[in-house]
Amino acid sequence: MQALWLEDKTLTFRDDVPVPSVPPGSVLVRVRLAGICGTDLELAKGYYPYRGVPGHEFVGEVVEAPGRSSWIGHRVVGEINIACGICTACRTGLRAHCEERAVLGMVNHDGAFAEYVSLPLENLHRVPQSLPDEAAVFTEPLAAALQIGHQVPVRPTDRVLILGAGRLGQLIAQVLALTGCDLQVVARHETQQALLAGCNITPITEDAVPCHKMDLVVEATGSPRGFALALQAVRPRGKIVLKSTYRGSLEVNVSSIVVNEITLVGSRCGPFASALRLLASGTVDPTPLIVSRYPLSKGLTAFEHASRPGVLKVLLEPTSLLE
Amino acid sequence: MQALWLEDKTLTFRDDVPVPSVPPGSVLVRVRLAGICGTDLELAKGYYPYRGVPGHEFVGEVVEAPGRSSWIGHRVVGEINIACGICTACRTGLRAHCEERAVLGMVNHDGAFAEYVSLPLENLHRVPQSLPDEAAVFTEPLAAALQIGHQVPVRPTDRVLILGAGRLGQLIAQVLALTGCDLQVVARHETQQALLAGCNITPITEDAVPCHKMDLVVEATGSPRGFALALQAVRPRGKIVLKSTYRGSLEVNVSSIVVNEITLVGSRCGPFASALRLLASGTVDPTPLIVSRYPLSKGLTAFEHASRPGVLKVLLEPTSLLE
Repeated sequence: MQALWLEDKTLTFRDDVPVPSVPPGSVLVRVRLAGICGTDLELAKGYYPYRGVPGHEFVGEVVEAPGRSSWIGHRVVGEINIACGICTACRTGLRAHCEERAVLGMVNHDGAFAEYVSLPLENLHRVPQSLPDEAAVFTEPLAAALQIGHQVPVRPTDRVLILGAGRLGQLIAQVLALTGCDLQVVARHETQQALLAGCNITPITEDAVPCHKMDLVVEATGSPRGFALALQAVRPRGKIVLKSTYRGSLEVNVSSIVVNEITLVGSRCGPFASALRLLASGTVDPTPLIVSRYPLSKGLTAFEHASRPGVLKVLLEPTSLLE
Repeated sequence: MQALWLEDKTLTFRDDVPVPSVPPGSVLVRVRLAGICGTDLELAKGYYPYRGVPGHEFVGEVVEAPGRSSWIGHRVVGEINIACGICTACRTGLRAHCEERAVLGMVNHDGAFAEYVSLPLENLHRVPQSLPDEAAVFTEPLAAALQIGHQVPVRPTDRVLILGAGRLGQLIAQVLALTGCDLQVVARHETQQALLAGCNITPITEDAVPCHKMDLVVEATGSPRGFALALQAVRPRGKIVLKSTYRGSLEVNVSSIVVNEITLVGSRCGPFASALRLLASGTVDPTPLIVSRYPLSKGLTAFEHASRPGVLKVLLEPTSLLE
């Protein structure tokens, strides 16, 4: 099949990648649409070692489901952590933290920048018929945005700051605005600012970040500068949610966290069902983030496009008629 | 009056320090007993600039209370943050985080290693008659230990690790053991281990710290090594409470906090009334931590004693008959 392939920090387009095998309990999904996210770009640059097909944001259609034929033909999205089911984390309901987990397109499991992807049935969520692929493909990052509210109460009276208005920051902004909170978002690029303004969300510049005033700060830049700004902006006893990973270690003034009794919360994958509800109702509309769509054969061009500063969502159409 | 005096990173004993003035709303307290804590030792080494009388753990007796004569003769302990009462933090109930605060013996307010100390009446708590000075002098650090439970739920089923079994670590251990949790404490020194064992608490060595297993880790060493061990020990979605400040910045692997969805909580001063209840009922007995008592004139010797590795609580008796 056609797929993008990552090996030795080099991404290539190949048409000879074997269609994934379908182990018991898993199904085969024909990928209809897949999204490139920041992690994919970092991965392609060798952020950590991975050999295989990248890609973890997708919507597809079940084409093989051994013993579960009722799934065939259904459109699905899929959770990215493939869990063992028997470790302590799995047995205590934390499958996303499975000690032996594979991760779709990232760790020991070929991803969605391919014609076909295989996933355990338990990872799949059916996509409501009314929901177009262009919205459903955002389920994974929207779930990650919703994870903030799953971990930390966000009150309508809270002063909230989001650092970063990229692919994930935009979705976080849309989600947090729904609480009625007093929301500000640091956005560097004009397109980012325009998108926020279109949602009645106030974009601000770094210079306008206040000192020790915000009840909640969401760090979505993944940069040391963003982390430092978060510590500057949060009020005593306030919370910082970290939604991005960072290259290497950061120099952190830990004493200020102690003295100001700050709470720092790491946040990763989130609830797919909730994301699908908000997409299906139209409460969150991520489609204005889409800047371009490419066939899989133009995947390297798509990656180059996605890596330009300020560019939001670039999609891949692995089984499109465009090719 | 007699007092210890800190200036240019040098601690001296003086007998010519003026008795503190008593502004409206404040009272004058004759110090009966004061405790040397880790922060005092760091302060004396120039941890941050302070000029004046150090000392913030004390029990004393009210000797002057303009317009509030009912307080005279009462034994009291005192909260250490002297708040402005009008800033945002004060108006939202966070007086310990007052933006303009002075801090007893640390920031712009002479402390308790003196014959007399002045404090606002609102900072004082009366000491129950049955509670001896030797226990009451631990109210401040015991309150700091109790602040953990104020910020983070500690469940009887939790696996809990405390890093550090010094002055504060011992009190934290006693407090957390009351929850019925599965508690382990990393203790380096034999006296620390013996004290814990006497409270039926399991002391362990650093080598025995598990990987990613603990629901809650309390970091009470203030060392980079302790911080690294906390990140090692905590389970995915677990919590780390930081009870110590650190010199300078730490190199932190922030991505592991994100990927494992760790919550980091800075924790400082705590509830005095709760501490007094646990002391008065005898539920917590801190007096075995006392290793020695010195008159104020021997204060420099007392500091030297307190700074030896593994030494727990050294007390000063500013107005003792011992002198």
